[in-house]
Amino acid sequence: MGTEFLKIKTVDEAIEIIKKLFKESNIKNNYDNEIININKSLNRVISKNIISNIDFPPFNRAIKDGFAIKAEDSFYATEDDPKTLKIIDRVEAGFFSKKTIKNGEAIEISTGAPIPDGADAIAMVEHTKKKENTVEIFTSVTPNQDIAFKGSDIKKGEIILESGSILSPGKIGAISAQGINEVEVIKKPKISIISTGNELINSTDNLSFGKIYDVNSHSLKNAIISSGGKAINLKNVNDDYDDLKKEIELGLKLSDIVILSGGTSAGMGDILIEVLNELGEILIHGISVQPGKPTIVGKIKYNNNSNNKSNNKSNNKSNNKSNNKSNEKIKIIIGLPGNPVATLIVYYIFIAPEIRKITGFEINKEKNIEKYPISKRIHSESRTQYVLVKLKNNELYPIMKDSGAITSLAIADGYIKIPKSVELIDKGKLIEFYPF
Amino acid sequence: MGTEFLKIKTVDEAIEIIKKLFKESNIKNNYDNEIININKSLNRVISKNIISNIDFPPFNRAIKDGFAIKAEDSFYATEDDPKTLKIIDRVEAGFFSKKTIKNGEAIEISTGAPIPDGADAIAMVEHTKKKENTVEIFTSVTPNQDIAFKGSDIKKGEIILESGSILSPGKIGAISAQGINEVEVIKKPKISIISTGNELINSTDNLSFGKIYDVNSHSLKNAIISSGGKAINLKNVNDDYDDLKKEIELGLKLSDIVILSGGTSAGMGDILIEVLNELGEILIHGISVQPGKPTIVGKIKYNNNSNNKSNNKSNNKSNNKSNNKSNEKIKIIIGLPGNPVATLIVYYIFIAPEIRKITGFEINKEKNIEKYPISKRIHSESRTQYVLVKLKNNELYPIMKDSGAITSLAIADGYIKIPKSVELIDKGKLIEFYPF
Repeated sequence: MGTEFLKIKTVDEAIEIIKKLFKESNIKNNYDNEIININKSLNRVISKNIISNIDFPPFNRAIKDGFAIKAEDSFYATEDDPKTLKIIDRVEAGFFSKKTIKNGEAIEISTGAPIPDGADAIAMVEHTKKKENTVEIFTSVTPNQDIAFKGSDIKKGEIILESGSILSPGKIGAISAQGINEVEVIKKPKISIISTGNELINSTDNLSFGKIYDVNSHSLKNAIISSGGKAINLKNVNDDYDDLKKEIELGLKLSDIVILSGGTSAGMGDILIEVLNELGEILIHGISVQPGKPTIVGKIKYNNNSNNKSNNKSNNKSNNKSNNKSNEKIKIIIGLPGNPVATLIVYYIFIAPEIRKITGFEINKEKNIEKYPISKRIHSESRTQYVLVKLKNNELYPIMKDSGAITSLAIADGYIKIPKSVELIDKGKLIEFYPF
Repeated sequence: MGTEFLKIKTVDEAIEIIKKLFKESNIKNNYDNEIININKSLNRVISKNIISNIDFPPFNRAIKDGFAIKAEDSFYATEDDPKTLKIIDRVEAGFFSKKTIKNGEAIEISTGAPIPDGADAIAMVEHTKKKENTVEIFTSVTPNQDIAFKGSDIKKGEIILESGSILSPGKIGAISAQGINEVEVIKKPKISIISTGNELINSTDNLSFGKIYDVNSHSLKNAIISSGGKAINLKNVNDDYDDLKKEIELGLKLSDIVILSGGTSAGMGDILIEVLNELGEILIHGISVQPGKPTIVGKIKYNNNSNNKSNNKSNNKSNNKSNNKSNEKIKIIIGLPGNPVATLIVYYIFIAPEIRKITGFEINKEKNIEKYPISKRIHSESRTQYVLVKLKNNELYPIMKDSGAITSLAIADGYIKIPKSVELIDKGKLIEFYPF
């Protein structure tokens, strides 16, 4: 399919196409899980429900320090007229008493210790006075008071954590109370990154005239990590058809998603389109968005069994079509603009939400999107516009530099969206803030 | 100093004492920095300003694809009456032209390429039509149009990122544009963790009657990591004076902060107080807070040069007092309650803010604290109360379980504060939400 038929897409159209492509690629469901130790599980996403191994508490236990008694032995006790019970044992947390309490008896007990047989309540230490072998109880205690019963918190076989939970310190704590030390989590999906452009050099190279240091490999890599993915930095390639094709094919072999940056503008360096046209199909070539207009999205049918890519055309004609088809995967190519601000904004707006669906790092929909007043009036463009902002003193400061300005990346805390229908946003208006 | 003189502290008093102790300990300023590769720098905190190595852009460069020209050669050009210029060269990004443009001449140029000598503007490709060796310009171009001048974004020697910045993907991008590949960041402070209690077992042990699995080593470890610290899990110790003292001394050797959990209640297992009284000074023994009342905070003068701790009493009397003093550090002991909910809440409220000051992970003060309506009416207690909550459908659901309930840790998304002056919070009232 030639690109000449592709009209530039609106933001909403582009989002729909990308959503559909990720769904069709089925990366989320094909994706492996992995079992890891809970010591390394912070912020990982569990991939199946975690079921309780044991009743918790595992035994009836004291919630307070005090004396295990029969509640009825405390009835009508007051400060002036305490009830006196005989202390027959003492049990600390981690141990248990072999004795059984009869009327008139008490066992001294500490928080967390198992309730002795015969006892049905705890008289907390603050309401008692211990003498040699007896204790005075100063207040009535009700049956079951200050006892946490076996399984009252959670019963064996119940769900502790639902699939999709992100493992916070507290959630890891809840799992460890079960003696569980391994969890099944979503494996971080690999995403290949290729920076393109003859002008790019690495930080170890000398800066000669006309060259600039590669930014996008670094910023994109870390944006992917932030979305829960694992970035594979492939070679930076020059605007050379064969090199680019070779590197994209390597990316397809290593991962289900290949993200390129650079080489997408309408100018001379435009060879990605040609490579994609050969390898697969271009779904988006241009989005009506500022910055990020030259964004490209492509779909490639990839045969995992062969070492080579499956060529779409020849496959369709081949006799073993069904055989090939079963091993065929839909892989995704994203071509981002070369300039660093546009690259990052397009990634966050169009790509990150889909990566987050795979990794389980979806933005918490239970939370409000925070709004802050904008520090100055801004005009909008004819297309949907995303503007980097700095959040300071509860106000959003738009960073109005051209999208090649790397200092805006150093300053920005996030971005705002200006829909194309809006012509002007007045100073002080509350705007939704999307933090990085 | 005996603990009998210590009155229970209010929440505000406790916060002040802890703040002062951390300040006195000077951990923040004593703390080392380290130099790391930017590939491993995501979410690290830079410890000194990053200064620009180079002008950026490093040369005058084209912002658009098109033709480098003398602007005056385009004046009065229209669609109907274009100006025709001779194409004398072509320059792609990453290369440069050796030619100098004279009047009537143009050099075809792609985005990112250096502006050729003699040119003072770019006529963007959309407003031109290329023929064999000439180009028609259809619109007037102003001088400097679509040129990003050398150093216009940032000049060599200017600050790119201020000390204390947290390295986001964008900020890492900004640094890499400078060819910088190493950054100096705050070294993660080590914090020792000791769980205490005869009832605690590890996940590899069998659950015998009266025992429970240790939760706090795991939840605290990860809470410390979330605050930017590095947790050292020491041995779980039983309620044994010598074992506890030995393990605390190991913690003091390995780190400036030792956090214990368990062994703080008023019951039988209360030996931490004795150990602290021997090693140093107890500043807090009890906070009027629910949960977390039995929290202990201690201060220990520690001599780094000797292998043993410095004994406060003998030091004060020794002849080489000043000599010892110079090597003396103030170290911090925190005793958290044994139950997992209280442990985590006390950590988040009283300790995490101070750890975050050291690690540079301070909560963004530029941001509002979000408020959500509460799902049901809750009564307060006589002391300041912190309640775990689940955030669902933009509403806060208080989790009203006893603080030994580990399922509340599995459910909670954060907590709310109920000041002691408030008796009742009505359903629907907007409450500040502190997410984990």
